[in-house]
Amino acid sequence: MPSLPEYDTDDIVESAVVSRLAANWGQRATVKKVEPDLDDLFDHDKHDYPEALIPFAKHEIYRGLAEASKERIRAWGWIAFNKNVMDVEQHIVNPGFSLLARDAFDTKMGDVLAVAVTQAMVDEQYHTLMHLNASSLTRRQRGWSMPERALPFSAVIRRQQRSQLEAQSSSDAALSALAYTTVAEISITSYLDLIEDNELIQPVNRATVKLHNRDEYCHASIADEMAVIVFDALAPAERTLFLTGLAEGMDAFSSTDFSTWEAILRHENVVGWERMLTDTRNDSSRQKLVQDYSGIRSLCRKLDVEDEIGIDWP
Amino acid sequence: MPSLPEYDTDDIVESAVVSRLAANWGQRATVKKVEPDLDDLFDHDKHDYPEALIPFAKHEIYRGLAEASKERIRAWGWIAFNKNVMDVEQHIVNPGFSLLARDAFDTKMGDVLAVAVTQAMVDEQYHTLMHLNASSLTRRQRGWSMPERALPFSAVIRRQQRSQLEAQSSSDAALSALAYTTVAEISITSYLDLIEDNELIQPVNRATVKLHNRDEYCHASIADEMAVIVFDALAPAERTLFLTGLAEGMDAFSSTDFSTWEAILRHENVVGWERMLTDTRNDSSRQKLVQDYSGIRSLCRKLDVEDEIGIDWP
Repeated sequence: MPSLPEYDTDDIVESAVVSRLAANWGQRATVKKVEPDLDDLFDHDKHDYPEALIPFAKHEIYRGLAEASKERIRAWGWIAFNKNVMDVEQHIVNPGFSLLARDAFDTKMGDVLAVAVTQAMVDEQYHTLMHLNASSLTRRQRGWSMPERALPFSAVIRRQQRSQLEAQSSSDAALSALAYTTVAEISITSYLDLIEDNELIQPVNRATVKLHNRDEYCHASIADEMAVIVFDALAPAERTLFLTGLAEGMDAFSSTDFSTWEAILRHENVVGWERMLTDTRNDSSRQKLVQDYSGIRSLCRKLDVEDEIGIDWP
Repeated sequence: MPSLPEYDTDDIVESAVVSRLAANWGQRATVKKVEPDLDDLFDHDKHDYPEALIPFAKHEIYRGLAEASKERIRAWGWIAFNKNVMDVEQHIVNPGFSLLARDAFDTKMGDVLAVAVTQAMVDEQYHTLMHLNASSLTRRQRGWSMPERALPFSAVIRRQQRSQLEAQSSSDAALSALAYTTVAEISITSYLDLIEDNELIQPVNRATVKLHNRDEYCHASIADEMAVIVFDALAPAERTLFLTGLAEGMDAFSSTDFSTWEAILRHENVVGWERMLTDTRNDSSRQKLVQDYSGIRSLCRKLDVEDEIGIDWP
């Protein structure tokens, strides 16, 4: 009588790694933990953001600023960092996971995969809350108005949105969205250690980054498995689009973007900020902050496209 | 020096009700509770969905079906119910809350309101997970394939999306989105009691609805306060658009939609289903399932637009 196939586990695409992660989500997810009292943990003597992450921190103009100005710039650095994390979660990661959760790529995946991806979406939404709380705490404790809305979208968000608008069809747009999500979830911002392991930095901020990262280790496994499962289900032309998206995503996530710092320095009326940013842009000796794409590389190896993708791996 | 105003609580729009809810989120939110072992709670002898919510349950064709067929239709009813909840959260509520969280309506709201709305978004994302788990459990325990993807978007989602596409500008679209979110969060689906209070029904399903509703009582307060705050900040023409959106949203949420039942009955190859649905549509004695708009009415009273909005309140 029924025209749909009956429940048959043989028919369904599953993954042992993801099943295990789905089963222990209730124990491991940060959202399940007790909420800390952030105000109690705030230490007014600590830096809100490491100077190692401020690209112009060694420039004479920055070094000549009063400590009070540097404090404000560091606080802005932290608020901008949080805004970027939240924007990536809201505009890149969760829309991509949402495509997976409703099996937009027709992988025939089973409920366990959909559940794992939906759990990851809860985590991402909770990370947005964590980073908003962290910025709010900084504003409240420092007594400074430093609204996110004074800052632009970062270059990676602008580029992803352009790719969405330029896609030839909704299925091309979905492949591009998935590629950006994959890069976001599998690449590691290696400079996060500069916040997490730094005794000078605000303990609340270090804890926020640490807790967030712990969830992300699991998301990397889920995103990796899902990319393999989707890739298997794609036609050759779709695979090419997905790989192009991966390469574009990697380029976008590692591009240097000064637009946020420009907005901050302009708001703070730092005298000579234009010259400072120009010098910083042109300073070839400056150590660039890098994204670690070893996870994407190993994914590409699994997909047997490590050479094909046109990336000059380090 | 700094060009932005300093932190000043006098400047900031806040709400005592919302502040209290934001402060106790960690204790009250369902997402913070221990995950239940759903499989242990499943009772094979209970109904998955109440017949009182199946609009054709008294029709001779339904009544003449074998109990095994009725069981499948009730399971589908529950899966369709869950899909509708998830679709409303993903496509109506969270996009609307997201506009509020980034203060798209320029209310000058403070961090506490943004935090409360972002907490509500975590709740909504978690409800999506709860309802997916509930459908997945039904499929697994009954051994039936009954994928959400076999079902269409409900009429309310289709209508909201049409309004988004037809909006003249992105700010008009935002007002329409907020109006739908407001209706979704403040109106009460009075028929939920038919699931929650019914001894015949699967205990897991009753618990799912009950836990979800507990969060929603708080969301109703938040959405109500936010609607008042936004309305205060709107220009007259924008207010008119918002009220039109409210009226449209109320109409959309209470419209009768048979498209999902049609998909289910077609899949189940129920002989005579076309006639059964036609009879049901035309049966004027059939008790319509109603949405309780008393919360929206009291919001409109606060906004002093109870008569203006053009609704024939019951």
